[in-house]
Amino acid sequence: MTRPATGARERIVSSTLTLLRQGGLSAAGLNEVLALAQAPKGSLYHYFPGGKVQMVGAALDVYRDTVALQLGQALQGRARLPLRVKRLFDAVAGRMAASQFSQSCAVGAVLLDLRPADAALRQRCEEALAHWARTAAEHLHELPTPQRPGAGRLLITLLEGAQLAARATGNTTPLREAGRAFGGYAQALAELASAKTRGMQP
Amino acid sequence: MTRPATGARERIVSSTLTLLRQGGLSAAGLNEVLALAQAPKGSLYHYFPGGKVQMVGAALDVYRDTVALQLGQALQGRARLPLRVKRLFDAVAGRMAASQFSQSCAVGAVLLDLRPADAALRQRCEEALAHWARTAAEHLHELPTPQRPGAGRLLITLLEGAQLAARATGNTTPLREAGRAFGGYAQALAELASAKTRGMQP
Repeated sequence: MTRPATGARERIVSSTLTLLRQGGLSAAGLNEVLALAQAPKGSLYHYFPGGKVQMVGAALDVYRDTVALQLGQALQGRARLPLRVKRLFDAVAGRMAASQFSQSCAVGAVLLDLRPADAALRQRCEEALAHWARTAAEHLHELPTPQRPGAGRLLITLLEGAQLAARATGNTTPLREAGRAFGGYAQALAELASAKTRGMQP
Repeated sequence: MTRPATGARERIVSSTLTLLRQGGLSAAGLNEVLALAQAPKGSLYHYFPGGKVQMVGAALDVYRDTVALQLGQALQGRARLPLRVKRLFDAVAGRMAASQFSQSCAVGAVLLDLRPADAALRQRCEEALAHWARTAAEHLHELPTPQRPGAGRLLITLLEGAQLAARATGNTTPLREAGRAFGGYAQALAELASAKTRGMQP
């Protein structure tokens, strides 16, 4: 039997993701991934004949979908907008704290690590950020429709910056501050729009 | 004469910075730096007997002071706050465009690249972000004094996130959007404070 053990692909993808979140592309070398996944070299080439780019691409796709789910879960519901935004930033803060602030967004870490030759991975990162921004925008239902896409993009930009800052401070303060600021900003946009609508009524 | 050529230290520091801005710590290997700096190996050990950590530390110190100057230049003056903020984000966008979006903030790239063993460099990155936030805060003079530090930190967090997003899109849109949003946010804080002050007057 040369067939790799069941679960080897999942272990490789999950190990790749852990290393990407720690140190970007440069941290996710094939040997490092295999060691962390406790997988035989053959399984890597079996599942990812395209090598590192294919392996990292698969990990980024899983990550894109996981984060989109987490965004939706945090931002959905009937709680007030600032509370839902707080829930999101608190969840990210909790995950970063669990790694002692040694892991943050895989997409962010890959992006600040890219060489011009890595065009395929850059595009995957761009698609992930855009997907997250759209997912967030869908849940900012208090905002006027035309303002939602921009607010969704701003939320993701701030979330990326705050994760970076939290790695610097080694605590959750940057995430909590950014969450409060965005919550207040989005709430103000919503109230302004609602006041304008009332003002226009006869 | 074994004395290294004049300017070798400056070339090493500037090459280190270029590589850090491209790909963080992992991109600034000693051999890569020497090749880009066109400097003999001896000059590296002459100026940086502490090796890579000392060399990267020196580059980050230069970068911290350069960026603080640029922040001050963009945010100072009598123009309205949103215009000064726009000037800052436009300047960063211009520098990123000049590198075809292959270079962004050195501190951000190093932070998303750090291993737990790199505690000394993490602290240097933390100090740089804090220094920039204070520099920005000093120039947000329209805001009430107690709100300035938080607004300064938010500005730097957003600037870091927007640079990351601009590397994903390969254009200046994320920086321009983030600049407009922060400019509007800061202006609203200033107007709210000014309205409250007027309201309290007899």
